[in-house]
Amino acid sequence: MDYLDAIAWNADGLVPAVAQDAVSGEVLMLAWMNRESLARTVATGEAVYWSRSRAKLWRKGETSGHLQKVVEIRLDCDADAVLLRVEQVGGIACHTGRRRCFFNLLEAGEGAAGWRATDPVLSEPGRFRDGG
Amino acid sequence: MDYLDAIAWNADGLVPAVAQDAVSGEVLMLAWMNRESLARTVATGEAVYWSRSRAKLWRKGETSGHLQKVVEIRLDCDADAVLLRVEQVGGIACHTGRRRCFFNLLEAGEGAAGWRATDPVLSEPGRFRDGG
Repeated sequence: MDYLDAIAWNADGLVPAVAQDAVSGEVLMLAWMNRESLARTVATGEAVYWSRSRAKLWRKGETSGHLQKVVEIRLDCDADAVLLRVEQVGGIACHTGRRRCFFNLLEAGEGAAGWRATDPVLSEPGRFRDGG
Repeated sequence: MDYLDAIAWNADGLVPAVAQDAVSGEVLMLAWMNRESLARTVATGEAVYWSRSRAKLWRKGETSGHLQKVVEIRLDCDADAVLLRVEQVGGIACHTGRRRCFFNLLEAGEGAAGWRATDPVLSEPGRFRDGG
């Protein structure tokens, strides 16, 4: 069976893909892939996602230069989620100019819980938006 | 604004949630949450997901004992993905008895690409299935 046929694509033909920094172990982002984006990722060794907002293939870093070089690709037990371990070129995965997209930490102290941005902006935010 | 209202729930009222081992950094699994599951996770300090296959709340480890104690909860830049850093009780996150769900590695050598299970089964597989 083709490795693409082994995946339990959702009703939209997509699967969630988690990108993890292969060196630091940090979870960088979650994006989506369709068959073609995964096939291109495998063929090129660089992460290609499916942009749901733009409804097109999205080669990560195509405008920012912040490519993701793929170290390994994993599939989970139910075949409905993919994990990419990547070398994050430029050390910036997020379009806001931060290292990772998961920069909002839930703070649930004595008052109401809320999200607080914890990570510094390393490059001009929004300048190089190339995904979604 | 309530922290739950800040989340961009999908059409089914769900958001993907990635669980990462807080000590090893290993990505353990990807599951789904609805409002109530996230609220219960915050309230109890233990991961509660929404089982899409069973259409009910699923306290991770409720039958296996392999609870996930939540160290921190993060939200991504688009507010449509959640990251849990957890202490994985028993060191086994996957219902197959493996450490993590992402045990299938894509091997794309000279022949056809395919997925190969790389991780050992640490406990009797299938015995304690409690999710999905």
